[in-house]
Amino acid sequence: MESLQDIAHQIYQRTGVMTSSKDVEKILSAAAATPHFWEIITLSQKPFSVVAEIIELLRQKNLLEVDKNGDIKFNSKGLEYLVSLKIAPKRTYTCHACEGRGINFSKLEDLIKKFDQVTVNRPKAISDYDQGFVTTQTVVGRIALLAERGDLEGKKLLVLGDDDLVSIAAGLSGMPTEIVVMEIDDRLVEYINEVANKYNLPIKAMKYDFRDKLPEEYVGYFDTFITDPPETIEALEICIGRGISALSKEGCAGYFGLTSIEASLEKWNVFQQILASKFKVVVTDIIHNFNHYVNWDYLLNTVGKQYEFVQVEPKLNWYRSSMYRIETLKDSKGIENEYKPCELYVDEEALIYRGDKA
Amino acid sequence: MESLQDIAHQIYQRTGVMTSSKDVEKILSAAAATPHFWEIITLSQKPFSVVAEIIELLRQKNLLEVDKNGDIKFNSKGLEYLVSLKIAPKRTYTCHACEGRGINFSKLEDLIKKFDQVTVNRPKAISDYDQGFVTTQTVVGRIALLAERGDLEGKKLLVLGDDDLVSIAAGLSGMPTEIVVMEIDDRLVEYINEVANKYNLPIKAMKYDFRDKLPEEYVGYFDTFITDPPETIEALEICIGRGISALSKEGCAGYFGLTSIEASLEKWNVFQQILASKFKVVVTDIIHNFNHYVNWDYLLNTVGKQYEFVQVEPKLNWYRSSMYRIETLKDSKGIENEYKPCELYVDEEALIYRGDKA
Repeated sequence: MESLQDIAHQIYQRTGVMTSSKDVEKILSAAAATPHFWEIITLSQKPFSVVAEIIELLRQKNLLEVDKNGDIKFNSKGLEYLVSLKIAPKRTYTCHACEGRGINFSKLEDLIKKFDQVTVNRPKAISDYDQGFVTTQTVVGRIALLAERGDLEGKKLLVLGDDDLVSIAAGLSGMPTEIVVMEIDDRLVEYINEVANKYNLPIKAMKYDFRDKLPEEYVGYFDTFITDPPETIEALEICIGRGISALSKEGCAGYFGLTSIEASLEKWNVFQQILASKFKVVVTDIIHNFNHYVNWDYLLNTVGKQYEFVQVEPKLNWYRSSMYRIETLKDSKGIENEYKPCELYVDEEALIYRGDKA
Repeated sequence: MESLQDIAHQIYQRTGVMTSSKDVEKILSAAAATPHFWEIITLSQKPFSVVAEIIELLRQKNLLEVDKNGDIKFNSKGLEYLVSLKIAPKRTYTCHACEGRGINFSKLEDLIKKFDQVTVNRPKAISDYDQGFVTTQTVVGRIALLAERGDLEGKKLLVLGDDDLVSIAAGLSGMPTEIVVMEIDDRLVEYINEVANKYNLPIKAMKYDFRDKLPEEYVGYFDTFITDPPETIEALEICIGRGISALSKEGCAGYFGLTSIEASLEKWNVFQQILASKFKVVVTDIIHNFNHYVNWDYLLNTVGKQYEFVQVEPKLNWYRSSMYRIETLKDSKGIENEYKPCELYVDEEALIYRGDKA
């Protein structure tokens, strides 16, 4: 029977994504715990293409079967294979009360209700800007996190890209003194300004592409930024670099999500080198699965059309990311305030690119 | 009235610890939320010496008062000062169910009970090795975290220093195939081996000082290590470097606690540079306040004897640390396997050193 190392090597050849035998092991352990493809991604936190190709490879090797509903099940040969490798079904111990975020929502119930009411007519996620917004629990969890860390109350907040409508939740919380949204999608700019006017929230939204320089008046202006960057290295560097440039001094904070679904841990390492050595900021928190994304309409039209086990409606909000908090130090610095061309969305780890290509 | 910047500068001169105006702000915000010195540290997560000196300075400036119980209270002048700086009492939103760790303990109740029974006669924490062990919830939370991340079941675990008795909890969980404890304190080596024998756990404890080279047979041997390192940069580098050297290949994991009470964020940044660039490992998780330490007997004999607000019995397990998880990549490497002399415990941020000096 095939070794994990052999499988890892074949997957690397098929996907171009660096894959280790431990990665394969984690995906097998996840697949042993659930028959649902999207949950295997959630449990293993590995790139879409890697997970899909491993399932496909195991099917070709006759170790698992896919039924007419797209459910994935190891057959007896497959189960023996797992035992021979000492791979057990993945265990989970996630707190039900807080979905693992560590945050008590009881003081936040009013904000949750208000946010849902106010944003009921929000614009739909569209693929043009790689959109996909987070759940209300996530948005309000972010507000609590920023507030608990002392980064919200009485502060000036920059939201760099806001399909999640964090600005509105922050405004409704009553805590920040000023909120600026810079957003590329006209629909969102307009929507956020409308809501801000209607509810008298201290928010100003403007059109902005983060490849462009920051408006001069906002360089070194804010206490806190939050963003949900595209996950190529270039985009991460520019987006977070802009955020840091917008902060006023040491002890300011930045928040952003990063997946291991579209960004391998190799990429995380490169990015952590940039954060620590180039930007000289400190990472104070990395909270696993903090951000849960609402399943977006265009998913099954854009990925994995050739696999019937992929072409099933997700039964859970499967796409999740870790929440990073960074803090500026005495010598922190962002990027030069000038136009920076960059590839935003496409590399070999990206969800859509692989789907298209495969 | 004094600016935050002025206070920060004075505190830096008094303590030698880099202090920003945001640090001062966070300590004032914490002090506005509780009268109890040890809780101010917990809420602000700043170095002991910095917190103590700020409280002392504010008292000298007649902005707060300390009553006969050691309780700290802003007077009316102090409250006006806070308002003028727009500093609000610190808010907390920590999940009660999981104490913010994100872990559901309901599947772990048996393990909690068993661990408490088995370790009831554990050795006391002593200052010789900077000991102070964590709560049972913390130990069992660690077991759940390692298990959920796929780093425990069927794995070989190294525990590098084990006054927390993580090895015993891991053994009782039944998940690891092999557990090796390397520990400097003879009392603990003996105790852990006794318990392992009595309960037939797959644990072997041996005497080891992490400045010494690893036993050759354990280089590249383990799947996972866990440790609670002393917090000088040198000690962090050597201790975590040894752990990485003991791991077998990419995709292996290391866990360790790091405080911001004894390690400033400037130090965190230096250490993160080492992790990302020198060791080429990736940080996958930093979980705030994951580790709660049981108050140790020798505390009030070793710190802050000159402040009556420090000389009060802590009302909570005030000393906490963030839990780091790192994962090895293709090019990760630890340190050379040779003797490394280093200063373990003492630098200007350390708890005991400042207490002695101040």
